[in-house]
Amino acid sequence: MKIILIGASGTLGKAIDAELAPRHEIVRVGRSNGDHQVDITDTASIRRLFEQVGRFDALVSAVGKVHFGALAEMGGEQFAVGLRDKLMGQVNLLLIGREFANDGASFTFTSGIISDEPIRFGSSASLVNAAIDGFVRGAAIELPRGLRVNAVSPTVVEESMEVYASYFRGFKPIPAAEAALAYARSVEGAQTGQVYKPR
Amino acid sequence: MKIILIGASGTLGKAIDAELAPRHEIVRVGRSNGDHQVDITDTASIRRLFEQVGRFDALVSAVGKVHFGALAEMGGEQFAVGLRDKLMGQVNLLLIGREFANDGASFTFTSGIISDEPIRFGSSASLVNAAIDGFVRGAAIELPRGLRVNAVSPTVVEESMEVYASYFRGFKPIPAAEAALAYARSVEGAQTGQVYKPR
Ligand SMILES: NC(=O)c1ccc[n+]([C@@H]2O[C@H](COP(=O)([O-])OP(=O)(O)OC[C@H]3O[C@@H](n4cnc5c(N)ncnc54)[C@H](OP(=O)(O)O)[C@@H]3O)[C@@H](O)[C@H]2O)c1
Ligand SMILES: NC(=O)c1ccc[n+]([C@@H]2O[C@H](COP(=O)([O-])OP(=O)(O)OC[C@H]3O[C@@H](n4cnc5c(N)ncnc54)[C@H](OP(=O)(O)O)[C@@H]3O)[C@@H](O)[C@H]2O)c1
Repeated sequence: MKIILIGASGTLGKAIDAELAPRHEIVRVGRSNGDHQVDITDTASIRRLFEQVGRFDALVSAVGKVHFGALAEMGGEQFAVGLRDKLMGQVNLLLIGREFANDGASFTFTSGIISDEPIRFGSSASLVNAAIDGFVRGAAIELPRGLRVNAVSPTVVEESMEVYASYFRGFKPIPAAEAALAYARSVEGAQTGQVYKPR
Repeated sequence: MKIILIGASGTLGKAIDAELAPRHEIVRVGRSNGDHQVDITDTASIRRLFEQVGRFDALVSAVGKVHFGALAEMGGEQFAVGLRDKLMGQVNLLLIGREFANDGASFTFTSGIISDEPIRFGSSASLVNAAIDGFVRGAAIELPRGLRVNAVSPTVVEESMEVYASYFRGFKPIPAAEAALAYARSVEGAQTGQVYKPR
């Protein structure tokens, strides 16, 4: 399969790359790194990416920013960051990418455990991650031509604990390689509308 | 309790009003009907409402629009409707209303079954309803002063079937009065971060 991997240089992206590259052609994409560049917050940039890369069999997205901060200090603008970036950035990868997708192609997006298991400073992440999971369930049943869409909602990964440990006290991290298996299940399996939860 | 009911003139709002009015002071709010008017898509309008109404013990919101339509015909602008209206409209009721809320006050928002049980034309509703449920889980753990926040995620109600039946074939509708009980549980109970599912 020809697989477009958005966020290939990231912590999750590298592990997904390692899992899928032995069996597939990987087109590595990042904001500044990779074979191609895209800014998922910019629909013109997304369209340019697909025009450059051409038809594909799977798109995997392991990107997306939300504002982390105390709810007491957050207003509408802080919530807008996650809506524009992690949420609509990924939704737009489907809304635009579907035009370039081969029959039976799959889209796999990244949400995260905070939708179900809230943490301090994570109210926007809870909102956005849940929205991605809901979108996947809703969009799956309307996609034509055997197109599929799933989400992977990982717990925190070991490789990120150096940075995130203070947010995730008491959470049991998993290796990124274990989270990456869920992306392979989505891409190489046949399900749609699923939220895989490597935890 | 002094309860602000946004959407009091609506199908769900009227049933919530009937359930709560015998025991509480209800401040009825709508876009054009009610004791006070607000446009939840306009943060200045929300602030004006709270300045007019003053301090309160509970806010119940049974409002919010999303775009219903075929996914094939939807782009970013169609998804933006639900983000601005049903999602951020309700989120902003909390972000602004918390300044006016008495200690221990509750916020109760409305999402809906389509987050879990997708229907044709409902991809934006799936996204938005799930986002509201996620926000409630995330925000609940950070609210100060005993403030609480819950969501009610009803199935379709009998009183709406005249309009919505073709979208909801095979769903078992419930009377709006039964959905209204969940709002009473949220307001008069003590839980927070819950998604009540009258189904
Ligand atoms: N790490 C975890 O433990 C964990 C757990 C659950 C969920 N998640 C979620 O998974 C996603 C990725 O996390 P991560 O820790 O792997 O991230 P990361 O290591 O910070 O990597 C981010 C990747 O995204 C790319 N990127 C950043 N902004 C972009 C944009 N606007 N457009 C396109 N690409 C962009 C970066 O490309 P360049 O290198 O080219 O800049 C990089 O490849 C996030 O949404 C995160 O919330 C992470
Ligand atoms: N009905 C159902 O079966 C059902 C089931 C599950 C979830 N829901 C959800 O529950 C919510 C309410 O549904 P409903 O059927 O009760 O609606 P409805 O009968 O159409 O009533 C809408 C109410 O919202 C008010 N309103 C509309 N736009 C507003 C705005 N921009 N700012 C402030 N108020 C506004 C209206 O006020 P005015 O009358 O003054 O214009 C009215 O009171 C919706 O989000 C819907 O998705 C409904």
